[in-house]
Amino acid sequence: MSIVAVGSIAFDSIATPSGRAENILGGSCTYFSLAASYFTDVRIVAVVGEDFTAEHEAVFRKRGIDTQGIEHAKGRTFRWGGQYLENLNEAKTDFTELNVFEKFQPRIPKQYMDSKFLFLGNIHPALQASVRQEMNGVRLTGGDTMNFWINRTREELLHTLKLMNVLLINDTEAKMIAAESNLPRAAQKVLAMGPQALVIKHGEYGATIFFREGAFGIGRHPFRAPALPIEEVKDPTGAGDSFAGGFMGYLASQEELNREVLKRALFYGGVMGSFAVERFGTERLQQLTREEIDGRFQVFRELTHLE
Amino acid sequence: MSIVAVGSIAFDSIATPSGRAENILGGSCTYFSLAASYFTDVRIVAVVGEDFTAEHEAVFRKRGIDTQGIEHAKGRTFRWGGQYLENLNEAKTDFTELNVFEKFQPRIPKQYMDSKFLFLGNIHPALQASVRQEMNGVRLTGGDTMNFWINRTREELLHTLKLMNVLLINDTEAKMIAAESNLPRAAQKVLAMGPQALVIKHGEYGATIFFREGAFGIGRHPFRAPALPIEEVKDPTGAGDSFAGGFMGYLASQEELNREVLKRALFYGGVMGSFAVERFGTERLQQLTREEIDGRFQVFRELTHLE
Repeated sequence: MSIVAVGSIAFDSIATPSGRAENILGGSCTYFSLAASYFTDVRIVAVVGEDFTAEHEAVFRKRGIDTQGIEHAKGRTFRWGGQYLENLNEAKTDFTELNVFEKFQPRIPKQYMDSKFLFLGNIHPALQASVRQEMNGVRLTGGDTMNFWINRTREELLHTLKLMNVLLINDTEAKMIAAESNLPRAAQKVLAMGPQALVIKHGEYGATIFFREGAFGIGRHPFRAPALPIEEVKDPTGAGDSFAGGFMGYLASQEELNREVLKRALFYGGVMGSFAVERFGTERLQQLTREEIDGRFQVFRELTHLE
Repeated sequence: MSIVAVGSIAFDSIATPSGRAENILGGSCTYFSLAASYFTDVRIVAVVGEDFTAEHEAVFRKRGIDTQGIEHAKGRTFRWGGQYLENLNEAKTDFTELNVFEKFQPRIPKQYMDSKFLFLGNIHPALQASVRQEMNGVRLTGGDTMNFWINRTREELLHTLKLMNVLLINDTEAKMIAAESNLPRAAQKVLAMGPQALVIKHGEYGATIFFREGAFGIGRHPFRAPALPIEEVKDPTGAGDSFAGGFMGYLASQEELNREVLKRALFYGGVMGSFAVERFGTERLQQLTREEIDGRFQVFRELTHLE
């Protein structure tokens, strides 16, 4: 089933210990949609400026991604510049130019309205809520957020959390939302705010999914998926968005949404994240095959499963 | 088969957000041997002072641990005081009194010499090497070290690493030994220094075992085991030593040492670490049953295994 993804398209300038790249296609919606496109039909909602060319759009089109929801606005596309020092787990932002993204008001094309899966990328929680309310026939909504919204728009965020079935965030964000330093306790507090399931991404250590009592199955036992130990991370940008794309894309490809399916989705999230970091920007995500993806899924299984 | 463990016995004074305890039995050898005692016969080599009573010794005896290798020296037992703030992953040391431990020269009782498994706890690497050379009939040697020795006795440590089959350390220690910030690359560098397998403990994120090409099986694929998401960590002291005890104890209980056995050992390490932190000091490790341990092993499996 198709999935609608709302988020950012950006041009990134990135420096890592492996090299640098200027003004390459990036943004949460870009990584998410490319990763999800290997599992299901993806329809995106984003805004770009006049510097966004047919060549850029072809990156989405080649993966069969529906770009009717890209709004072309006057001005320049969102730009971000950052560098990763030796510790590839954290980016140092050099600059952020919101440009056309500053006034982004997501508009869902009519043809998108029959989609049953929705992913609310990291935008103002009030905009996330409005999209969710507009798409009121969806079966499952996933979403992301970040420290900026947690600190500055807490009330709106708390409202939006009630509209999400699955929230995908990292350790720091979960602890911030819950105001709780113990991660499993923070997870329970976040679940009490609305989502039925909470995916916490631990970067190089994988991810954990926590469930509300009885959501998608019996009990509330969490589940952990690994990350691949990677000797050469070329560019960590977009790993988390690619994780979300693999996770949500796999869910949208399944008939039933039960615990086992969510667990497998967690593995596919890790798989797509592991591909994303192998090359700069979206390069690797543009040219995968489903065979490569399922091959790596098997590697993830062998990495964690006893006989 | 029995295992000889060399390390420290200490009296710890600990404060955590859950409470505090003064002068309770601790030390690497204590946690290690209690954890390992649920899998195999354990014989310890350590030094204590005049303040170490028959009651303290009974803690070991009740678990069937051979205490003939405890040297009773004049003076006081090693004491450590520390506190864990909100972030339970790191201890702030209040004081360290080495006392009798300062001049510890491990002496292996003759009756211990037929043991086929040896664990070299975190002591001066030159002492580790001398014990290993004395116990020259062992089948497998595991060992630990820490930042203090990595920084101050690097040459001796590099020599000792060649005498260890399995090194068990944490992320920071692995990166320090290898002078390399990428963990999987650091692991390969450490393996090139001697050990056939390297266990890297990630605290609340579990552990990874890396293998030298061809060691204990085919190829060099790593394997990851989880840690349990624990909502109430009472006292993290000794979690790493308990992990090592579960890991080595399980190995010593097995006929064959192949990859699958080492993977299961990694799970048992996590299991014993998860019990250790449930109560202050060694309280929980003193009163477990094998049924509880295997029950939790099953929980670890369900936490990570797809259908």
